[in-house]
Amino acid sequence: MENIKVVIWGFGAMGSGMAEMLLKKKGVDIVGVCDRDERKVGKSMYEVLDMEAGDKPEVIIKDDIEDVISKECADVALLATDSFTSKAFDKIKLCLENKINVVSTAEEMAYPQAQEPELSEKIDKIAKENGVSVLGTGINPGLIMDLLVVLLTGACESVESIEAERVNNLSPFGPAVMEEQGVGITTDEFEERTKDGTLAGHVGFTESIQMITDALGWKLDEPITQSQDPIVSNVDRKAPYAEVKAGDVAGVKMLGHGKVDGEQKIDMIHPQQVEPQLEGVETGDYIRIKGNPDIEMSINPEVPGGIGTIAMCINMIPQTINANPGLKTMLDLPVPRAIMGDMRDRINRK
Amino acid sequence: MENIKVVIWGFGAMGSGMAEMLLKKKGVDIVGVCDRDERKVGKSMYEVLDMEAGDKPEVIIKDDIEDVISKECADVALLATDSFTSKAFDKIKLCLENKINVVSTAEEMAYPQAQEPELSEKIDKIAKENGVSVLGTGINPGLIMDLLVVLLTGACESVESIEAERVNNLSPFGPAVMEEQGVGITTDEFEERTKDGTLAGHVGFTESIQMITDALGWKLDEPITQSQDPIVSNVDRKAPYAEVKAGDVAGVKMLGHGKVDGEQKIDMIHPQQVEPQLEGVETGDYIRIKGNPDIEMSINPEVPGGIGTIAMCINMIPQTINANPGLKTMLDLPVPRAIMGDMRDRINRK
Repeated sequence: MENIKVVIWGFGAMGSGMAEMLLKKKGVDIVGVCDRDERKVGKSMYEVLDMEAGDKPEVIIKDDIEDVISKECADVALLATDSFTSKAFDKIKLCLENKINVVSTAEEMAYPQAQEPELSEKIDKIAKENGVSVLGTGINPGLIMDLLVVLLTGACESVESIEAERVNNLSPFGPAVMEEQGVGITTDEFEERTKDGTLAGHVGFTESIQMITDALGWKLDEPITQSQDPIVSNVDRKAPYAEVKAGDVAGVKMLGHGKVDGEQKIDMIHPQQVEPQLEGVETGDYIRIKGNPDIEMSINPEVPGGIGTIAMCINMIPQTINANPGLKTMLDLPVPRAIMGDMRDRINRK
Repeated sequence: MENIKVVIWGFGAMGSGMAEMLLKKKGVDIVGVCDRDERKVGKSMYEVLDMEAGDKPEVIIKDDIEDVISKECADVALLATDSFTSKAFDKIKLCLENKINVVSTAEEMAYPQAQEPELSEKIDKIAKENGVSVLGTGINPGLIMDLLVVLLTGACESVESIEAERVNNLSPFGPAVMEEQGVGITTDEFEERTKDGTLAGHVGFTESIQMITDALGWKLDEPITQSQDPIVSNVDRKAPYAEVKAGDVAGVKMLGHGKVDGEQKIDMIHPQQVEPQLEGVETGDYIRIKGNPDIEMSINPEVPGGIGTIAMCINMIPQTINANPGLKTMLDLPVPRAIMGDMRDRINRK
């Protein structure tokens, strides 16, 4: 069997991280990379990664996707360009029409049925017409605040309510994340940017909550509600890409709520900040299920976001290739798992 | 769509617990029960359960399976009679030949490839010939020390080693479990019964370890090793179905190990005892993954065994019905989830 062939579209922190991970794996080759960053275009992927090519095929980074993909040129495209389904749609369509399976990092694509039901139907139709499949995944949405919650309810006779909390450290992230999450700005700026919608915060509560309710067979009474508040620092904080003065914003605390049968049955709590330990905040992932039985899970420290998202996307490649054609979510496929052997061994021959 | 029809074979603690759970669910009916216990045979299932039938169909417990099942009489049979594949085999075969899907509680059936590769092939073949599927599941093996471990590695770029620990309280269990686990016996008796093989301890390490290694693509160097030691009580302990004097056995501590590439990469630690809190032992489930990243998960207290196994079997009914024909494991199917809505909504129409 030939090696699995992968195209990477978007060579930022996620895309390049996926390339590094793939280069350590057996039975898989990267056959194309597309990115618009002028500093990367025209260069060898190995040069940009500062890694040795060894006996792997040369890959020159191109800025025009038409120069990267062609019909059935790869088994799967890793799409690491967007957060929103509407922005990723044309790219997904192009891959599918070239009969290439797609794994997307776009947060909304983790459960596009939640906010983009029409685009979801279109994607499903195009995928089926071309005999390939599409999956959106990542650490969150994709695992921590949704799939892991769903899995744990599998041990329950009944579920009354669910609380998922992810307390994470933003310090390892770069300037783009600091900007999106408002790290280092004043509380006045935070308020303004919340009003004018330029403070992204976490994207994914709608997707995670809809994934959980659909999985359990609950019906949401109304659209989910969410809020974002500044985490105001009491001390000066310093991270590689951010400085926060006491009294300014160290991060953003996001809350999300889902109402079922007149009761608030799902709560999401997600404070993200730099250097939380300076104020004695321990990071971690927590799931609290009230039901029969109650289940209280914790992971300390939290599963890190960057490497976690990279790993989820790579580790779900075989399940995406093996899936029946169409739009898939983490609810539809066998569980993710680390790939320590030859990736080809995971592929069901058709 | 008609209600999903379920037959229950074995009406002990697990089988009757599944019936109670099913009777609270929508879109599903129990259409037959088989058990050999003379106190139950000939009686209404509802009488034995001490529950109201309401508008549900009457079910009389029969001791001859031929009086319970016939071709396509049900969508799924819940088989709660055995721990070992070899003992469950004829029963599984009979259900499959009647074109009924099977969910089995037999611990070895959680991953029968591990100890019964030939029977596994036979079961797979019979299932495929009859267009139905078979799944073995439960809380452990089935979820806590295997599927949950596998799922968490999905967030890892690489895995070096895995430790899974389950510290549980046996007090809620009945006399059969006390007997199997040696609760209340002397250390001399424990040693004798370990030698002559009449002390069952936990059944499932081989299955869990093989499930993990197959999932990750690791190859075991040699058969797994396991040991069982008495948990000797320092104090008098009393549980509903057991009494333990200081100096006697409060339970059994099982250890299991899997060797990969010359290193002991998988460790299972499973001390089971009555009233652990009397000696300050906190119960819980723990998974410790060394890799990139490390992941340390805990669930406190442990997910309880009885209700957990019952819930896992019921909650996996839709995935088993929906599966392509053949022998399936938890690695092959979409994740378990609590069923809070109508069970029929989970069934993919073919």
